[in-house]
Amino acid sequence: MNSIQLVQQIESKGSFLCVGLDSDPRLIPSTFQKESDPIFSFNKAVIDATEKYAVAYKPNIAFYEALGPKGWESLQKTMDYIPKNVFTIADAKRGDIGNTALKYAQTFFEPASSGFNFDSITVAPYMGEDSVTPFLSFENKWVILLALTSNQGSQDFQLIRDENNIPLYEHVMRKAMEWGDAGQLMFVIGATRTEYLKHVRQIAPDHFFLVPGVGAQGGSLEDVAKYAMNSKVGLLVNSSRGIIYAGDDTSVSAAREAKNIKEEMSMYLDQYWIK
Amino acid sequence: MNSIQLVQQIESKGSFLCVGLDSDPRLIPSTFQKESDPIFSFNKAVIDATEKYAVAYKPNIAFYEALGPKGWESLQKTMDYIPKNVFTIADAKRGDIGNTALKYAQTFFEPASSGFNFDSITVAPYMGEDSVTPFLSFENKWVILLALTSNQGSQDFQLIRDENNIPLYEHVMRKAMEWGDAGQLMFVIGATRTEYLKHVRQIAPDHFFLVPGVGAQGGSLEDVAKYAMNSKVGLLVNSSRGIIYAGDDTSVSAAREAKNIKEEMSMYLDQYWIK
Repeated sequence: MNSIQLVQQIESKGSFLCVGLDSDPRLIPSTFQKESDPIFSFNKAVIDATEKYAVAYKPNIAFYEALGPKGWESLQKTMDYIPKNVFTIADAKRGDIGNTALKYAQTFFEPASSGFNFDSITVAPYMGEDSVTPFLSFENKWVILLALTSNQGSQDFQLIRDENNIPLYEHVMRKAMEWGDAGQLMFVIGATRTEYLKHVRQIAPDHFFLVPGVGAQGGSLEDVAKYAMNSKVGLLVNSSRGIIYAGDDTSVSAAREAKNIKEEMSMYLDQYWIK
Repeated sequence: MNSIQLVQQIESKGSFLCVGLDSDPRLIPSTFQKESDPIFSFNKAVIDATEKYAVAYKPNIAFYEALGPKGWESLQKTMDYIPKNVFTIADAKRGDIGNTALKYAQTFFEPASSGFNFDSITVAPYMGEDSVTPFLSFENKWVILLALTSNQGSQDFQLIRDENNIPLYEHVMRKAMEWGDAGQLMFVIGATRTEYLKHVRQIAPDHFFLVPGVGAQGGSLEDVAKYAMNSKVGLLVNSSRGIIYAGDDTSVSAAREAKNIKEEMSMYLDQYWIK
């Protein structure tokens, strides 16, 4: 999917909601446990309930990997079920070099390899250029690079400042923008503090940000919209547990939560989106 | 496996060789292509040829993941085949937080989860403490944390110095040593320059280093032994392509290459290992 299609979808749905599919056998309602593939059945219910309100789905790869080969099969069925006009993110946070990076890219981008055809993958920057660029050679596929995350541990290294007072996350963003443009590179940006939202938008005015940390992890959706929206919206805001585990009646509760967020997003699109 | 068992194995084999199983369907000799599971058959031949000389095997997870569910099955069979006294490394370079990190840990450490029972996993440090510590809660399992890698891109971020002239890789090592001790935490250290080998050994005198970048990637094995060996040896030096793709007759060529490296290592153990 290219950025024009992504922005069109955001406009037509009035939403920049990404639904995280962190589907855990121990957390899904008991009604799904009796199905032959509980994880897929649960994901199907979540997708049915939320596809009107979501512009992206983000399976958290760890949750599938932990189930062995059958987890990958549940993920494959899930991917086949997601409507083709919805953006898909392999939240895999891979990061390795050269040939190995290419194998990871093939895993998630090349149907002839593992069977998957994701639109994007989350990537970790620690190993530098040759761990990121192999993912950028695929047409209409995206790298979503970790920049400033919302977890406690983000303070350990991401905020370290060099002798010119430039924090590591800024180095990561500026370097990566030399490797890929706003049509193939997004950044993971935690929504924990207003000053950071302003700063990262100043560093990367044109790029999309994938924003976790709204809701359960504590950021304000309005602040994200107010300080980080750009002329192409430039935002995908993720919610996982708050939607998929909102209640035992998944079809009803997931739809309700996604609709609530979508309505708030529609309001902010009216208010802050200057095309 | 604990560090005492690992050091005993190194001593009894006279080797600190790790064989990297970067097994690629397009690179394995044609004789294996006709087998029902070519990747497992190839790995089996490599293991048979090298187990006398190797103290560790390191499957590169990307290569299995790229093949879809059948790749995970080849990996499972490979893991079941590796002798139990040999150290195993899931070269997965995972890095995510909290629950997600725990899922990755379960994938590779908990047989009841995905079926795997690796001794260790490579982990990326960018997200900080809560992305590393979940892996450290498993008894006799190891985190091998990326610190200073040997690739070109390692210069992009790992060498950035703070206002006190401390490079990022040193921050990573010192912080991580607060989270885990030398019996559960190793570091990935590229062997490209003598000055770095000296520096990282000074930072972490007791920890094991997993060293790629010897051979094909250019470092000197003698320099690694000379500048980074400690009283528990403290080194696992990896070779992948140089051994597994040494020739079309895998049984002969992989054994020959592994034996050559092992003999060089034995010499350096005699010369530089001060118990």
